[in-house]
Amino acid sequence: MATLTEFRRVAEQVSNWGRWGAADELGTLNFITPDKIAQAAGLVRHGRVFPLGVDFDSSGPQGAFKFRQNPVHVMTVDGGDARTMAQYGPQWAANGFGQEFGGFFAGEENPFRFNDDMIVMPLQAATQWDALSHVYYDEKLYNGFPADSVTSAGAFHCGIDKVDGKGITTRGVLLDLVRHRGADVFLEPGNPITPDELDEVAKAQGVEIGRGDIVLVRTGWWSRFQETRDGAEPYSGLDWMCAKWLHEREVAAVAADNLMVEDVVSGVEGTFLPMHMLCLRDIGLMLGEYWDLTALAADCAADGVYEFQLVAPPLRVVGAVGSPINPIAIK
Amino acid sequence: MATLTEFRRVAEQVSNWGRWGAADELGTLNFITPDKIAQAAGLVRHGRVFPLGVDFDSSGPQGAFKFRQNPVHVMTVDGGDARTMAQYGPQWAANGFGQEFGGFFAGEENPFRFNDDMIVMPLQAATQWDALSHVYYDEKLYNGFPADSVTSAGAFHCGIDKVDGKGITTRGVLLDLVRHRGADVFLEPGNPITPDELDEVAKAQGVEIGRGDIVLVRTGWWSRFQETRDGAEPYSGLDWMCAKWLHEREVAAVAADNLMVEDVVSGVEGTFLPMHMLCLRDIGLMLGEYWDLTALAADCAADGVYEFQLVAPPLRVVGAVGSPINPIAIK
Amino acid sequence: MATLTEFRRVAEQVSNWGRWGAADELGTLNFITPDKIAQAAGLVRHGRVFPLGVDFDSSGPQGAFKFRQNPVHVMTVDGGDARTMAQYGPQWAANGFGQEFGGFFAGEENPFRFNDDMIVMPLQAATQWDALSHVYYDEKLYNGFPADSVTSAGAFHCGIDKVDGKGITTRGVLLDLVRHRGADVFLEPGNPITPDELDEVAKAQGVEIGRGDIVLVRTGWWSRFQETRDGAEPYSGLDWMCAKWLHEREVAAVAADNLMVEDVVSGVEGTFLPMHMLCLRDIGLMLGEYWDLTALAADCAADGVYEFQLVAPPLRVVGAVGSPINPIAIK
Amino acid sequence: MATLTEFRRVAEQVSNWGRWGAADELGTLNFITPDKIAQAAGLVRHGRVFPLGVDFDSSGPQGAFKFRQNPVHVMTVDGGDARTMAQYGPQWAANGFGQEFGGFFAGEENPFRFNDDMIVMPLQAATQWDALSHVYYDEKLYNGFPADSVTSAGAFHCGIDKVDGKGITTRGVLLDLVRHRGADVFLEPGNPITPDELDEVAKAQGVEIGRGDIVLVRTGWWSRFQETRDGAEPYSGLDWMCAKWLHEREVAAVAADNLMVEDVVSGVEGTFLPMHMLCLRDIGLMLGEYWDLTALAADCAADGVYEFQLVAPPLRVVGAVGSPINPIAIK
Repeated sequence: MATLTEFRRVAEQVSNWGRWGAADELGTLNFITPDKIAQAAGLVRHGRVFPLGVDFDSSGPQGAFKFRQNPVHVMTVDGGDARTMAQYGPQWAANGFGQEFGGFFAGEENPFRFNDDMIVMPLQAATQWDALSHVYYDEKLYNGFPADSVTSAGAFHCGIDKVDGKGITTRGVLLDLVRHRGADVFLEPGNPITPDELDEVAKAQGVEIGRGDIVLVRTGWWSRFQETRDGAEPYSGLDWMCAKWLHEREVAAVAADNLMVEDVVSGVEGTFLPMHMLCLRDIGLMLGEYWDLTALAADCAADGVYEFQLVAPPLRVVGAVGSPINPIAIK
Repeated sequence: MATLTEFRRVAEQVSNWGRWGAADELGTLNFITPDKIAQAAGLVRHGRVFPLGVDFDSSGPQGAFKFRQNPVHVMTVDGGDARTMAQYGPQWAANGFGQEFGGFFAGEENPFRFNDDMIVMPLQAATQWDALSHVYYDEKLYNGFPADSVTSAGAFHCGIDKVDGKGITTRGVLLDLVRHRGADVFLEPGNPITPDELDEVAKAQGVEIGRGDIVLVRTGWWSRFQETRDGAEPYSGLDWMCAKWLHEREVAAVAADNLMVEDVVSGVEGTFLPMHMLCLRDIGLMLGEYWDLTALAADCAADGVYEFQLVAPPLRVVGAVGSPINPIAIK
Repeated sequence: MATLTEFRRVAEQVSNWGRWGAADELGTLNFITPDKIAQAAGLVRHGRVFPLGVDFDSSGPQGAFKFRQNPVHVMTVDGGDARTMAQYGPQWAANGFGQEFGGFFAGEENPFRFNDDMIVMPLQAATQWDALSHVYYDEKLYNGFPADSVTSAGAFHCGIDKVDGKGITTRGVLLDLVRHRGADVFLEPGNPITPDELDEVAKAQGVEIGRGDIVLVRTGWWSRFQETRDGAEPYSGLDWMCAKWLHEREVAAVAADNLMVEDVVSGVEGTFLPMHMLCLRDIGLMLGEYWDLTALAADCAADGVYEFQLVAPPLRVVGAVGSPINPIAIK
Repeated sequence: MATLTEFRRVAEQVSNWGRWGAADELGTLNFITPDKIAQAAGLVRHGRVFPLGVDFDSSGPQGAFKFRQNPVHVMTVDGGDARTMAQYGPQWAANGFGQEFGGFFAGEENPFRFNDDMIVMPLQAATQWDALSHVYYDEKLYNGFPADSVTSAGAFHCGIDKVDGKGITTRGVLLDLVRHRGADVFLEPGNPITPDELDEVAKAQGVEIGRGDIVLVRTGWWSRFQETRDGAEPYSGLDWMCAKWLHEREVAAVAADNLMVEDVVSGVEGTFLPMHMLCLRDIGLMLGEYWDLTALAADCAADGVYEFQLVAPPLRVVGAVGSPINPIAIK
């Protein structure tokens, strides 16, 4: 296990602060150039589409924690209502919602009906991007922006709304650790993925990782969760030193099919989520979590092609430190 | 103004019920074949990306209505908190959230800090897809599914979770009505867009609309809203007969930069939103609303190319009748 | 175990439909007359106050269920924010909330600061009243109102807003089953409380139950929950025939320190919560749940006085089928 | 208009810091003794009840602001649903909520049905108590507690959960400024209520204000809002120096039928809400806002009795800086 001193030394080595100017809030998304985007589109050969988003509903993994809840989806008007909304709404003076709604349905012959709904959710409750402002240390966000610029009004710097201009679309590459290790379902806890193992997997799959790519790491955790519904199930994820590996390859972002991308056990003494700290704050590299890679991995195994056009646009929530997404891989 | 009898006659003409089998819940998204998807990717030449999503925040147009509110984005932990969370959280026995959070920050040398947030929003508060279950009449949804299969638990049939397998990605075509009419900012109310005018615009732009395309109609309403912040501002949108035009061209979906795609004044006597009823319920064709087409339109006007790869994946909210999105056009 | 036929026979016997007119939505709260209210105030001798509400937070019992969640309390502005809100808010054009908030704090010498918060909660997530519209059967609510008058816009009939004119205040009487049975902590499952046992307890305590009283039944479940934090912990509650007992004594309402007042095992074959059906729909008698009776019971045991002024006003949520409350007993 | 220097001098004069010990978080609620509570109950003569809470719904005054929204009340299951929930719920594997709900309704002869609902609201969206932690200055809350002890996890000090042990119940006294001034509907802006005027009103009404009382000030604003539905409507409220008047009379709390109790125009140069700062932070005196005093005032005018038992228990939201309430006056 590394010390905080060693961690800080690595942090200096991987830092991209200032690399794209003092005002930059894109970080490694800068590696995604127009050429890269066009090349990524060129990877589409068959028109096969793989949505990587999981269900946004009450069956998610958040029940295991107090600080995030599963998405709550509620119908505000539904199929059983129309007749009675038309009947009661307009006469219900004290109920503005009922009146307005009832009005839409009013009229003896008016056939018009509709359903509507709402959602309450932590922005990182299910498939998501972490914005660069999500994790930090020493009072600084990525590129030296002050940590207290994230107020109750949201992230003034490094919010998710600062990156949506990128799309986000580029070449995606899948590294299938489950297949590589020959694991039954998922990478059981106690055996973090090292930089060397990432190289091995890439080599075995015959794929190279390059500048501007988004790397998808399959650990099988989401499949495991489908079996157990235990959101607190421990697992092996990326060792914190993989941050350096990602930095050296000039990767644009990384995502995985587990809760935190990185290993559940911190590889640095006396702290928590060291890879998050390095990626988000020092490298300026976004993390994607809860991506369901099952179907994509099966297709990649079948045709031996582990690269594809990836499109993963965040919602433009102003000042958000993360965004729910439904990323799409196209082959 | 047409009668309900005329409306019902058109409804029969455009109906796709049974066309793709009795179990179909995809509707005109069936027109998006793998070939079509691959061809759409082939439209990417320069790697220019145009996100079409608007801001999800308190400045949106929903303030004008009681049945939907603007998105409420709230920080659940933010930059000013870390030191005090570490101090107070662990000793606050009655506060599970505080204890859990404080724990993450505990440890004298532990530098780890993070921000988190949540959102409360109607699923159609900002840039969105209407699912096929959103609007209906005569107790039936698209393809004859019973309207009461949409319960408080969500849409058992024709929910947004039934289409996310499509991606959704295909060829997008922009029809710029603002430019065509030479309007200053937007299409002022009183002059609905007719099928003939859509043909004229396509011809003037030198672009053809074909099977599986998604048509984007620019009316300038979003630009107007930026000026006025009046979500109830009336405007000209598509005449209800455009539904037939979309049906004949076998379009996959339609979207616009206004609140409802169609004109604010119903073209059918005694009812409301007739184009919604035809598109969603009879044709099985999804509508996209609040898409910001400003930057895309400027680019199309500049290079004369009005077609592009469009990627607009909905969130997989189980049983939802709509989804917030950030659609991406890539040229 | 009783049959549904027997259940329906009892339902007829206890029905109060029409008793206070066809328009009545108060039910047994009608038993609370001005005289009764004045007499209840007369029970206050020492000025000792016992709030009976539990914590509204993430530590509640709802984690055990999918259809209700624990209350989510979120700060919208907090202590760490003020300086930075003043700094960033006013310059953040795209953030209406931030601008407005920042404005409050603006001015070099302006010392004014504040905190604000919000809550998301099922109305019956913690200490609560069930409104008469909460439970029903055979398509009818209390007094014959149609069940479908409860739409997505809320309960047009028998909502909580129909009873708040009553206060609600009257004489409260505690029946301490835990003490009576000599239970260690709570009434373990398998032994429902019968009408006879209620009589025994009242007699042993030297207290009589009369018209317009609100009866509080202590089962110890809330104390048990404090130990286990298991919201699905089973217990003994009131047998369904206690509904008849309450009806005969012309009680105004009943409340308990458990999840559902009545026993977790239905005493009627083929259905669920028979006492709820009788009380809310046939008798028109409200149920209070999750009332913490611990301190009140200790005081009653100490001075032998089991009656008091009870004040339990619901929030006036228009059309709500329940309301969070903090009931107060005053002795 | 006073200067900040004068404000700070008054602040020192009215400070109650340390008066009830260094750990005190009750402030002037300490004036409510058991004797006072018992005497207040003794004011109940006729059993007439006046709930003072307003509607919690979409028609409230919050539409005028971005930082608070009106309460959003949503049905999670309603009258039109039961049959179809029973039909679709159990077969909907991907929908935990639907499955659980459908299960409750399952069984061919099972008549059991129910409705349920939830609410999303700022805790100060409608009738409310401000907790002592709501407003502060110079980095200190009431009694010197550090302002940053209010974190995203809530108010560690001076939260609403710290006062609920008091009930809150005591003698209430109404001061009817509308009647006193002979105003048509409400106190139009430009003429703040002074301490002298409060004395005059009390004298004219033949009522004295004493230690431990809660003073209710009727300005007519809520009646005005019923006419205009304009939540930003300006008005005359209490001049900031009334804080000193309340302090000298050792009042327990103050409430009004307007948005902020105090005048909309600050009486102290360069700052905002000076009376809030003095009351909450220096005196330790809670403010009640949006109390509907119309019916109570009519009754007081009719019988000439302006005192009553007041019961206004806050919800026990752990760490909240305010609470929705439905206060009850009993005469």
